[in-house]
Amino acid sequence: MAVRRRAPDDSVSLWTRRPESVRTVQEIFPECRVSSNLEDATRDAAVVVLCTSPESIQSIGRRLPDLLPSEAVVTDAGSIKCGIVECLDGAFAGRFVGAHPMAGSEQSGLTAAHSDLFENAVCILTPTGKSLPRAVATVRDFWRMAGCRTVEMSPEDHDRAIATVSHLPHATAAALMNAASASGADVPALAGGGFRDTTRIAAGSPGMWTEILAGNAANISTSIDSLISGLQELQAALRAGDHRAISTFLEDASAARQKLRHKS
Amino acid sequence: MAVRRRAPDDSVSLWTRRPESVRTVQEIFPECRVSSNLEDATRDAAVVVLCTSPESIQSIGRRLPDLLPSEAVVTDAGSIKCGIVECLDGAFAGRFVGAHPMAGSEQSGLTAAHSDLFENAVCILTPTGKSLPRAVATVRDFWRMAGCRTVEMSPEDHDRAIATVSHLPHATAAALMNAASASGADVPALAGGGFRDTTRIAAGSPGMWTEILAGNAANISTSIDSLISGLQELQAALRAGDHRAISTFLEDASAARQKLRHKS
Repeated sequence: MAVRRRAPDDSVSLWTRRPESVRTVQEIFPECRVSSNLEDATRDAAVVVLCTSPESIQSIGRRLPDLLPSEAVVTDAGSIKCGIVECLDGAFAGRFVGAHPMAGSEQSGLTAAHSDLFENAVCILTPTGKSLPRAVATVRDFWRMAGCRTVEMSPEDHDRAIATVSHLPHATAAALMNAASASGADVPALAGGGFRDTTRIAAGSPGMWTEILAGNAANISTSIDSLISGLQELQAALRAGDHRAISTFLEDASAARQKLRHKS
Repeated sequence: MAVRRRAPDDSVSLWTRRPESVRTVQEIFPECRVSSNLEDATRDAAVVVLCTSPESIQSIGRRLPDLLPSEAVVTDAGSIKCGIVECLDGAFAGRFVGAHPMAGSEQSGLTAAHSDLFENAVCILTPTGKSLPRAVATVRDFWRMAGCRTVEMSPEDHDRAIATVSHLPHATAAALMNAASASGADVPALAGGGFRDTTRIAAGSPGMWTEILAGNAANISTSIDSLISGLQELQAALRAGDHRAISTFLEDASAARQKLRHKS
């Protein structure tokens, strides 16, 4: 949708896994070529974008080098990068450049699509020493065209940073929701805006997020340790009635969060 | 503002702690009586609403019985109830009924006020055996007039439930923000909607929240234990690469959160 709106002269070809989805997708995108045959969908492609779960990106990506024109550049939208980049870096001889557009919500599927999804979203690109400069430039241009601000880092730095700013929040929202369910409180009757916001992303697709969390397990586990030690620090201050320590903990968080608010 | 809009014929008198605020408040509420003198502000009151921090509600509340007409009914907006109700239950001989309107945001002060703040918000009332039926009815009518849906429970049940649905989310948002700051990641550059929503309430007033968390320390500490054990369960599943256990954890959370979404 973003490409159709922002680059209306480019021709767009869509591949969908299930043959029974072709008609629905075609109705939504009457000007695009739609197919459930990977070879049909990718023939003549200049840029291929793999938008599915991390495991499927790898398995589909491995089939592509035999199908694509030899000049085609490939990128993806997976939210973990080490495994994907390791798998596809060599397979495309430098023509694959990993990307993680940080857009989307707890919703998934075609009904959640809208053409300004990427507007002002950060897209992290993870080129490596193997990436062809031409491919990096093409992929950077592609995501900027879609509306993103791009930043670049190694796949390892990406996975470590994202464990903190994306995967840990998801794990935390889920754990908070489960703790509330276990508490016996009438959560639906009592939840206000704070609870709703803090747990919103917990509604996201469990299948997708299982893959994501499992694919970045070591980094997330380290992040969880850091969160738990913060919670234990606050808990100790609460048990001791140490108002000054509670206040310092909350002041640090409030100051950091307010800095965030003024950005973007 | 809600009273002015929804009960325009009622006369409203506002008390503000600082004499230098009287003029500002008077400009915002030209039709109200505004004073920094508690006796002036409460003279002839039929209903008094104490809207400040839990500790101030108690200290101001204790001064009121000597000032108010003997028929006046008193309520409050404090987000912990046991201490407040214990302090004021006897002082007003059954004419105080505790309330916790679950509205508001991470913002505070007069600039955050708006007349539909309470619309569809839940207001928890905590009458006790000492509360006069007339006072309970008056306070219930007051909060409904302001736009709230009211529910009633004991102060003890309130503080336990709210530890889970309000205070734990605040503690968690703060701990998550602090963990992100400590991680070394460039959080302002990388934070997407998920991180922003999950940490939004961490921006709230540290002074106010120190009082709230300290005032409900035992219940919150129990809630933190429950959250930590959930995080450790997930962490163990991540370390073991146990996709099924990760998936179950996320499915439980997603199902519970989606039920919440369809409410309100």
